[in-house]
Amino acid sequence: MPSYKAPVDDVLFLLNDVFHIEKYSNLPGFADASPDLIEAILSEGAKLCENVLQPLNQSGDREGCVRNNDGSVTTPKGFKVAMQAYADGGWIGLTSDPAYGGQGLPYTLGAVMGEFASAANLAFSMYPGLTQGALASLMQHGTPAQKQTFAPNMISGKWLGTMNLTEPHCGTDLGLLKTKAVPQADGSYAITGQKIFISAGEHDLSENIIHLVLARIEGAPKGTKGISLFIVPKIEVKADGSLGAHNAVSCGSIEHKMGINGNATCVMNYDGARGFLMGEANKGLNAMFVMMNEARLGVAVQGLAVSEVAYQNAVAYAKDRLQGRALTGVKAPEKAADPIIVHPDVRRNLLTLRAFNEAARALVLWTALRSDVAHRSQDGAAMQAADDMLGLMTPVLKGVLTDVGFDNAVRAQQVFGGHGYIKEWGMEQFVRDARIAMIYEGANGIQALDLVGRKLPKDGGRAITAFFAEISEFLKANAGDEALAPYLAALKAGVGDLQKATLWLMQNGLGNPDNAGAGSNDYMHMMGLVALGYMWALMAKAALAKKAAGAGASMDAKVLDAKLLTGKFFAERMMPETSAHLARISTGAATMMAMPADMF
Amino acid sequence: MPSYKAPVDDVLFLLNDVFHIEKYSNLPGFADASPDLIEAILSEGAKLCENVLQPLNQSGDREGCVRNNDGSVTTPKGFKVAMQAYADGGWIGLTSDPAYGGQGLPYTLGAVMGEFASAANLAFSMYPGLTQGALASLMQHGTPAQKQTFAPNMISGKWLGTMNLTEPHCGTDLGLLKTKAVPQADGSYAITGQKIFISAGEHDLSENIIHLVLARIEGAPKGTKGISLFIVPKIEVKADGSLGAHNAVSCGSIEHKMGINGNATCVMNYDGARGFLMGEANKGLNAMFVMMNEARLGVAVQGLAVSEVAYQNAVAYAKDRLQGRALTGVKAPEKAADPIIVHPDVRRNLLTLRAFNEAARALVLWTALRSDVAHRSQDGAAMQAADDMLGLMTPVLKGVLTDVGFDNAVRAQQVFGGHGYIKEWGMEQFVRDARIAMIYEGANGIQALDLVGRKLPKDGGRAITAFFAEISEFLKANAGDEALAPYLAALKAGVGDLQKATLWLMQNGLGNPDNAGAGSNDYMHMMGLVALGYMWALMAKAALAKKAAGAGASMDAKVLDAKLLTGKFFAERMMPETSAHLARISTGAATMMAMPADMF
Repeated sequence: MPSYKAPVDDVLFLLNDVFHIEKYSNLPGFADASPDLIEAILSEGAKLCENVLQPLNQSGDREGCVRNNDGSVTTPKGFKVAMQAYADGGWIGLTSDPAYGGQGLPYTLGAVMGEFASAANLAFSMYPGLTQGALASLMQHGTPAQKQTFAPNMISGKWLGTMNLTEPHCGTDLGLLKTKAVPQADGSYAITGQKIFISAGEHDLSENIIHLVLARIEGAPKGTKGISLFIVPKIEVKADGSLGAHNAVSCGSIEHKMGINGNATCVMNYDGARGFLMGEANKGLNAMFVMMNEARLGVAVQGLAVSEVAYQNAVAYAKDRLQGRALTGVKAPEKAADPIIVHPDVRRNLLTLRAFNEAARALVLWTALRSDVAHRSQDGAAMQAADDMLGLMTPVLKGVLTDVGFDNAVRAQQVFGGHGYIKEWGMEQFVRDARIAMIYEGANGIQALDLVGRKLPKDGGRAITAFFAEISEFLKANAGDEALAPYLAALKAGVGDLQKATLWLMQNGLGNPDNAGAGSNDYMHMMGLVALGYMWALMAKAALAKKAAGAGASMDAKVLDAKLLTGKFFAERMMPETSAHLARISTGAATMMAMPADMF
Repeated sequence: MPSYKAPVDDVLFLLNDVFHIEKYSNLPGFADASPDLIEAILSEGAKLCENVLQPLNQSGDREGCVRNNDGSVTTPKGFKVAMQAYADGGWIGLTSDPAYGGQGLPYTLGAVMGEFASAANLAFSMYPGLTQGALASLMQHGTPAQKQTFAPNMISGKWLGTMNLTEPHCGTDLGLLKTKAVPQADGSYAITGQKIFISAGEHDLSENIIHLVLARIEGAPKGTKGISLFIVPKIEVKADGSLGAHNAVSCGSIEHKMGINGNATCVMNYDGARGFLMGEANKGLNAMFVMMNEARLGVAVQGLAVSEVAYQNAVAYAKDRLQGRALTGVKAPEKAADPIIVHPDVRRNLLTLRAFNEAARALVLWTALRSDVAHRSQDGAAMQAADDMLGLMTPVLKGVLTDVGFDNAVRAQQVFGGHGYIKEWGMEQFVRDARIAMIYEGANGIQALDLVGRKLPKDGGRAITAFFAEISEFLKANAGDEALAPYLAALKAGVGDLQKATLWLMQNGLGNPDNAGAGSNDYMHMMGLVALGYMWALMAKAALAKKAAGAGASMDAKVLDAKLLTGKFFAERMMPETSAHLARISTGAATMMAMPADMF
């Protein structure tokens, strides 16, 4: 049975030594977050994830969710108690407005807790996770009365939330959606239609479920410009805040899926359900995108999270499993065989995960800090710069962290040999669970298109220009540092390839967008590598500085040496991939578009 | 629900136009295999796979196998009838010795049928597949009496076979195995021990099951030099060939696995079961390796097979699913949206599968023909050259075709978006099923080590030298051909990288085997790319020649053009990866070995 230990120390190293979180103390919520408090919060969160959520991960997968004949859904044993503990700990509203009962802490800390919870129990973590997404949208677009009615109860976990976008005939292309909203005399709308793939659409974890639903107001324009967002409570809420009748919304069935079986993925039927417009009519997609962007970062974190827990368990197995002897001679003569961690190919596998995990965690926090600046700063220029980078990095994080996170779950499973294929050992569940993250919240092909088609050219390429400038400044400022040289050389080569690819896309993608589409996946992964390589350069610098200063009790020299070796592995083994990406991008779309559709 | 159409035409193109199977008519079994007969056989096999095996694939996964209280195992509904049809068609003994009821046809045709059956129903195909492996070992190492007793009934499918190697504490390292064999007065042995992960170990598809079991004769040397191979029938066979008592072997439990649920993976308990030594005492591993090598090629074919069926279904979905509009403007104005096959990134995905599938199929047949020469030729030099290449290519095929086959199942699933994650659509089953092929018959890390540690240096590098020479001759002979130039240029660059990597391994891997181990996975995949690139060069040449000659009714110009485009895609998008592999290999083992085990 797998285990999990939340990487609190690694997070503290990133927040304190790499990103110097104290620099952000002028932002609301950061002043309260002293290093000691952060450590206390994260340790508390770690305990909850390790001791309450993780033990339910395998049983939750085995039991799954059950839709009962009355349309209610029963979640796996223990989920209700765990949800109570999660809510009681204040974790749902960790970063929410204190005026509604939240703790107002940095989004960055929310991202950390997101990693811990997703690693411990991905299926479970989606219940509070979706509620947080719905809350973000509500806080930005809801009326004061709507916020007052719904936010405190969602923050306390008394009510949970969902997002209802997809319909049977439309997922990516929301312009096709058919669910309709008919205005009623009382100012509400009657919502009718069918939504599919609704995570946490129905369950027994809260007394009410607040659905955010995209629908088209009668007579609204076709396409994406006629879509509005509605709040549709499962149980109607009376003027005094107490619960009324069951709304005309029900779970028609739940999907039988590859994984995340502990989360109920529902077909939701709306039969004239009473809904309330949130934000402006016909601007529902904008309101939903607030939720989507936050959700995309949350899904990126899921990729990292599964990779981390898979790594931890693969390491434990590799140290424990005795099989064969080291290529360079017996290492454990007292045993019948050496532990398989003596083998370079096993280490290659493990370090591939670790070098990704540590850099991906850094990139999540680097981006989350930009999200905090973008949303909490008073400094217009800083806000804009942060928002640029957040927009640029969101599709990269979502696409790359979930693609690689899944690959890493597969790699970790491979370390177990035949045992990796057996359910009992739990490694195959990580693979099945991680797979969804590449699909939902915008399939990764869509992320890649968003990157090359929207985020790159936006505002004359302001964001990518700033990204290149930041790396270039770092390279220049540290050019003389010999200890950093291996990290910088790899980064320099990678960023050079990325610049060439960017130029190629500008020259060839504007006139023929198929060239941009044909290179989008490679470009996204290339940018991911460069961003992760940049994180390694930052981390190596911080680790070297800390070593030079005398590491101290919190992180001894062995840990810092391991970090430096892991970063070197990334530079040697992972960065070279940028050249292959560049070669592929440069071939353009001609060959693939020349194939007649009927000849596939 | 997925569908499947066996690629008979593509196989005929390979056999007739690319590999000129008529050149092999001097070999036993080939003379009978006229082009017409081959087409008739393959079409018959295709029908069986499409109409009988494939419809049971999804239901077999859903139902799984059930162990009953009496230790018997019930396979999914329909499997018994399908097995009867498979056996009645003569497919188990397709390539077996006619003296025992086989059809004596080329192994190459067996490999083709292996692809069709595995694509249609991987879990089912393992029942006859393991029997064929056991038969191969029996025919080579069994006594005449043993062959007479077991082979005809296995060829007819009355009895099926298994391989029993793994024990709880040993898989890769068979030297640790503990199952013991105690000589009995009647010349038989009493076998006692526990075997795990035994595919098809118990089932209801045949009246008897013939287990081949590795065990250690009492007093035999420790390690791999004290292992012998035994025939252990589930039901004892009397002298007159009729069935006797149940032997002391039973299925203790069946594993709950990630996939191939239609195949029973058993824990087998031997409690003094009566077994018969097969081959020489203490040379059991040699005898087993006959089976393993054939099994490894069979598993390689499984990787290709799942990739092919996944491709076919992803193409159908991509043509059917309407979502969004083409980047270059509306393509289907009469519809609410364009089919997603208009998108370059979807095409990139699909062509990645197709360019692999067609080349992998060619490489399987190229290698299978060498297997036929190695085992059936009378020409010593030809046999040795073929055997060299077979030995070199077996780990490459097993490792690369199963790694990429799995990745391709994941890619195909991605084309379906959210629907790919839902069991009903069947795409996630391909992913779960394909996953096992990377693990069993020697995990792919072991294949890579076998390649760089054994196959490369064997006989002074004779095999790899011959491989380079063959490609080099082909490049020279076709250097002036402009139409072939794009295929040859990519191959030349790839083989250049592979030669550099080979040299690096010779210079750095002999003194420090960790350097070889650290590069083994990259080297294996690099060699796979070069071998597949070589197949594309051969196929492009044949397609161009066929086009020039006027394609004819069997394969029209559109099909040949599609093949040429697909090969160009491979050259442009897949071959560039060799440079990244080379860069990684050249960094050696120092970084990964420097990490202390306790710091992972």
